[in-house]
Amino acid sequence: MTSSQDHNKVGSTPIVLSIDAMGGDLGPEAVVSGMSRSAKALPDIRFLVHGPEAKLSKLIERKKSLAGRCEIRDASGVVSMEDKPSHIMRHGQDTSMWAAIEAVRDKEATVAVSCGNTGALMALSMIRLRKLPGVNRPAIAILWPSRNPQGFNVMLDVGADVRADAQDLLQYALMGVSYARNGLDLERPRVGLLNVGTEEHKGKAELKEAHELIGRMADKAQFDFVGFVEGGDIPGEACDVIVTDGFTGNIALKTGEGTASLIGDRLKEAFAYSPLSRLASLLALTSLRRLKRKIDPRRVNGGVFLGLNGTVVKSHGSADETGVAAAIELAVQLAKSGFSERLAARLASITDIVTESDKTKKEDEESPK
Amino acid sequence: MTSSQDHNKVGSTPIVLSIDAMGGDLGPEAVVSGMSRSAKALPDIRFLVHGPEAKLSKLIERKKSLAGRCEIRDASGVVSMEDKPSHIMRHGQDTSMWAAIEAVRDKEATVAVSCGNTGALMALSMIRLRKLPGVNRPAIAILWPSRNPQGFNVMLDVGADVRADAQDLLQYALMGVSYARNGLDLERPRVGLLNVGTEEHKGKAELKEAHELIGRMADKAQFDFVGFVEGGDIPGEACDVIVTDGFTGNIALKTGEGTASLIGDRLKEAFAYSPLSRLASLLALTSLRRLKRKIDPRRVNGGVFLGLNGTVVKSHGSADETGVAAAIELAVQLAKSGFSERLAARLASITDIVTESDKTKKEDEESPK
Repeated sequence: MTSSQDHNKVGSTPIVLSIDAMGGDLGPEAVVSGMSRSAKALPDIRFLVHGPEAKLSKLIERKKSLAGRCEIRDASGVVSMEDKPSHIMRHGQDTSMWAAIEAVRDKEATVAVSCGNTGALMALSMIRLRKLPGVNRPAIAILWPSRNPQGFNVMLDVGADVRADAQDLLQYALMGVSYARNGLDLERPRVGLLNVGTEEHKGKAELKEAHELIGRMADKAQFDFVGFVEGGDIPGEACDVIVTDGFTGNIALKTGEGTASLIGDRLKEAFAYSPLSRLASLLALTSLRRLKRKIDPRRVNGGVFLGLNGTVVKSHGSADETGVAAAIELAVQLAKSGFSERLAARLASITDIVTESDKTKKEDEESPK
Repeated sequence: MTSSQDHNKVGSTPIVLSIDAMGGDLGPEAVVSGMSRSAKALPDIRFLVHGPEAKLSKLIERKKSLAGRCEIRDASGVVSMEDKPSHIMRHGQDTSMWAAIEAVRDKEATVAVSCGNTGALMALSMIRLRKLPGVNRPAIAILWPSRNPQGFNVMLDVGADVRADAQDLLQYALMGVSYARNGLDLERPRVGLLNVGTEEHKGKAELKEAHELIGRMADKAQFDFVGFVEGGDIPGEACDVIVTDGFTGNIALKTGEGTASLIGDRLKEAFAYSPLSRLASLLALTSLRRLKRKIDPRRVNGGVFLGLNGTVVKSHGSADETGVAAAIELAVQLAKSGFSERLAARLASITDIVTESDKTKKEDEESPK
């Protein structure tokens, strides 16, 4: 620790977030602005901020809302978007990303937030936080705007791992259910398994197997399984949790984001086209702002790493002030709900059930009646 | 042939389309309305229409624009969305879908159009039209609204087959290039291979292999290979042709469609919200209509089956009049450009190049210098 501003305690137990200030496309300026915006909205949060001290203290001093609520931890190294995860795992001890995760590992902060390189962040999270017992592949879950009453669906994995077998998909379902309960307040989330329709299909044997595994677990883990769903159901209302492998999930996520952004730009063009349409856009300003808030991808910014001892929120690399603030507010919500502990407890109880049922099955098989 | 209206020849060689009038969600009414709309716009097209004669002749008689331009072929069987492709392949001879494809096989029509069951349509197309020499897996290609000057990108496969190995992906690239040349008028299309970013990734060995194969073929087949692209590039401007397997492509397609449709609905809600926003929507009507035309998925309706002896256009099952007309107009464009023959010729010449280069390689290996 090289710098510490005075701790002006607000409330009884402030939530402490560990912020990697570096590695985003817009630099630490956007991160500190996002922190400032969140700090105004949420008086009971504090920050451990990781990055080059001289630079960060200047940026933070300019923001009144951050006065007395940040502790800067000097870190000279920065993980770039081009760095290979394997390199950072071996040589990244001096980076702000490493330090941000370490603070969660050491229980100094509840959740870490980073705009940096996803691959490196996942690799560091895996080796420093370690996987929860029973989890084979951690996953990245996001919230996606949907037609459901809660306004969002959970989709996972969106890119932690390009592969997933049937057991992994079952774990994604369980982790996604836990996230939907804590992040979207759904008591009994409905889970769908992403596929290409209900026709007979060769191949993709792991999906058929996962269908059976997830269906069998639904009652015990208190969720509803709606079976296979299609790409159109990701923003739809057929289910609340969409389970898929990280390759498919990542492509679906980026296709959806790209499509939304294209439509947004075309909408702007349409309203700039003629004097009449420019007048119209003035009249519709409030409605359009409301619309933008609903579908603005920056406002649902934040992939959550699931399946680790501790919570890490990955913000978009290109996040601006609004995006960073959204990621921080998601982190706060998860910290407040005790998400990390609840997920661990749930997975442990399910693992017990699975082990129990395996035992029973074995005993049944061993004792011929 | 059970019914034939008089052939009032317009122009020298009218383009004949084979239309499966049945199997769409909105019934033959939507199909005949779409035909009528296209017939008004394109005076040199004629239709072979397959389905129950009594019903179809009533619907067609009501449309002036179709007078003398349709020949109805009675077919009593209908392929439903629930029918298994394997069942239709064995027992579907009496269906309108079967007859629609048969007319292309018999060279009575240039292109077949159907709103029916995709799996059954692909299965029938495979067994009746047969694959082009050298093609292992046919693919379904679609046009996707994009930031490119031509307004659209080609993506394939969007669901003909859930699997694709490196050789299949190479063929998709070649077929996609041919489609982009004929459908989008691009002399030297840029091809991208869909992946999840440029980070190091385990697994997905077929993508690395396909990267090499496609890159090696670029110069000979006169296209540019931009390498790996991400989901965000499907509506983007990094390339013109996006190559992927049918599982990923189908999910990307449906995610994009679902997202666009959700945004469209939210936009309507925003404009209906207050008296002021309703006034604004009136003022912006022309601009909004222009926007809708640009991003309306119905206007880019039509997946083209590539790699067969003959062209089949698959319309969305839910296509209405606008959607059916878009699919028909795409079919006409492909018929006019002689797409089917050009694609076959190009694949044949490429196959020669591949065989030649394999031979040369072998000879090089066999003659140590």
